[in-house]
Order: sequence, then C-alpha cells, then structure tokens
Amino acid sequence: MRDIHSPACKSRQQAMRDTFDVISGKWKLQIISALSERTMRFNELSRELGVSPRILSRELKELEINKLVKRTVRDTRPVTVEYAPTPHSATLAPLIEAACDWGYLHYEKIAGTRRPHDPAEAISAQRQDR
Amino acid sequence: MRDIHSPACKSRQQAMRDTFDVISGKWKLQIISALSERTMRFNELSRELGVSPRILSRELKELEINKLVKRTVRDTRPVTVEYAPTPHSATLAPLIEAACDWGYLHYEKIAGTRRPHDPAEAISAQRQDR
Repeated sequence: MRDIHSPACKSRQQAMRDTFDVISGKWKLQIISALSERTMRFNELSRELGVSPRILSRELKELEINKLVKRTVRDTRPVTVEYAPTPHSATLAPLIEAACDWGYLHYEKIAGTRRPHDPAEAISAQRQDR
Repeated sequence: MRDIHSPACKSRQQAMRDTFDVISGKWKLQIISALSERTMRFNELSRELGVSPRILSRELKELEINKLVKRTVRDTRPVTVEYAPTPHSATLAPLIEAACDWGYLHYEKIAGTRRPHDPAEAISAQRQDR
C-alpha cells in the first residue's frame, strides 16, 4: 500500500489542492476559455458570459494575481479596460480538456444517455453513416 | 472567432461545470485518491485524512450519489461501514493527474522555485547525476 502520509504523496495532494484553489468556482475557467479566443473588454466579457460586474471584477482580480489574465488600461475616451490571456493560462488546456471529457462521461454514467452535443455522439453518428 | 454561444460550446462549458460541481471542495479527490489504494473503514478514512466525521459523512454521501464510492455495511459487532472505490471513480485518474501536474507548474510560476517533492525535480536531479 502506498503511504498517503509520505512527503511525496502529501506534496501531490497539496499540488492538486493548489490547482482547485486557483480555478474553482463557476467562472474562472469560463473566463479563461472565453479569453483564449481573443482579448475582450470588461463589459463585453460581462455580457458574453452573463456574469454580474461585481462578481466578474473579483474573479478577474484573482486570475490576475495568479498570472492567468493580463489587464491593460487603454487611454481612450472613455477609458477602456481590456483583458487578455497569458502564456501561463494556456498551460491549463490539458486540465480543461480532461474536465470537459470527464463531464461528458459522468453525465452518461448518471443520466444513462449522452449529453446533447457530446463530441463522442458526433463520432458515433459519423460511424453509423458509413 | 469561435462563437461561445453556440450549442456545442455551451455544452462543453456545462460539461466542465458538471465536473467541478461533482469534485469541488477540499476533500473529494483526496478521498477518492486514498480509496484508490484500498477499501477503508469510515473511522480509518477520517483519521488518515484528518477530516472531521461530520464533513467526511457529507462528502461520502455526495460521492456515493455520484457513483464514485461504494458503501458496504458489515454485520460485525460493532457494525463496521466500509468504503471502496468504484470503476467510475477510476475514470477520474486523467483529471487527477492533470490537476497535480498543473499544481506543480503553477507553484513554480508563482513562487519562482520548484515545490519540494516535485516529480520534475527528481527527474532533473537524476539527469545531473549522469
């Protein structure tokens, strides 16, 4: 049996906890996902995701502290504030993929049927076409 | 630009949210990780992880609903309650791996130094030995 009190194991658990501390909550990965497409202004992001300015402001601040978004103030009239992804945010891609994949798998397990627009459903539909 | 309002994109975001709804919080993945080694009794699990019985009970109930742990009551004196991993919980392995990997990477980015017991550190130390 692996000793879950060993330093290496404790370190892995802490690394996993760090990750979920940084990305947990309803919005963080959605924000990163939206910004991965293009730079967006604050109001635009708020509208696109349907998140209140108060919540969005808090989430963006936390993402900025963790070097996952870059905030730029443009000297326009009125002033515009833009948010862009960072190279560090791109490193979340494997985790985002794994979370999406497992979400589809879990839905199928619990609901007993595939979620609409499950990529696996599209593949199996293609196979049936042949 | 990808349309983040498209049904396929909404579906992916929902899948990602489902995942975090199921596994979020400090304990769930730690419980699954501990049980992946072996079946454990309730009290044993509480001691090993250092989590209060009240919290552990709630977390295990949620994991059971999501088919991620199996609860068995043994007719011993006193009665013992055992928890085991399920085949479905094993499907979380890629996500757990991705979360651990990113935790190490993020620590290095923010702290500017590797976390103690980072597997990458062990590999680089081996390389220096050659």
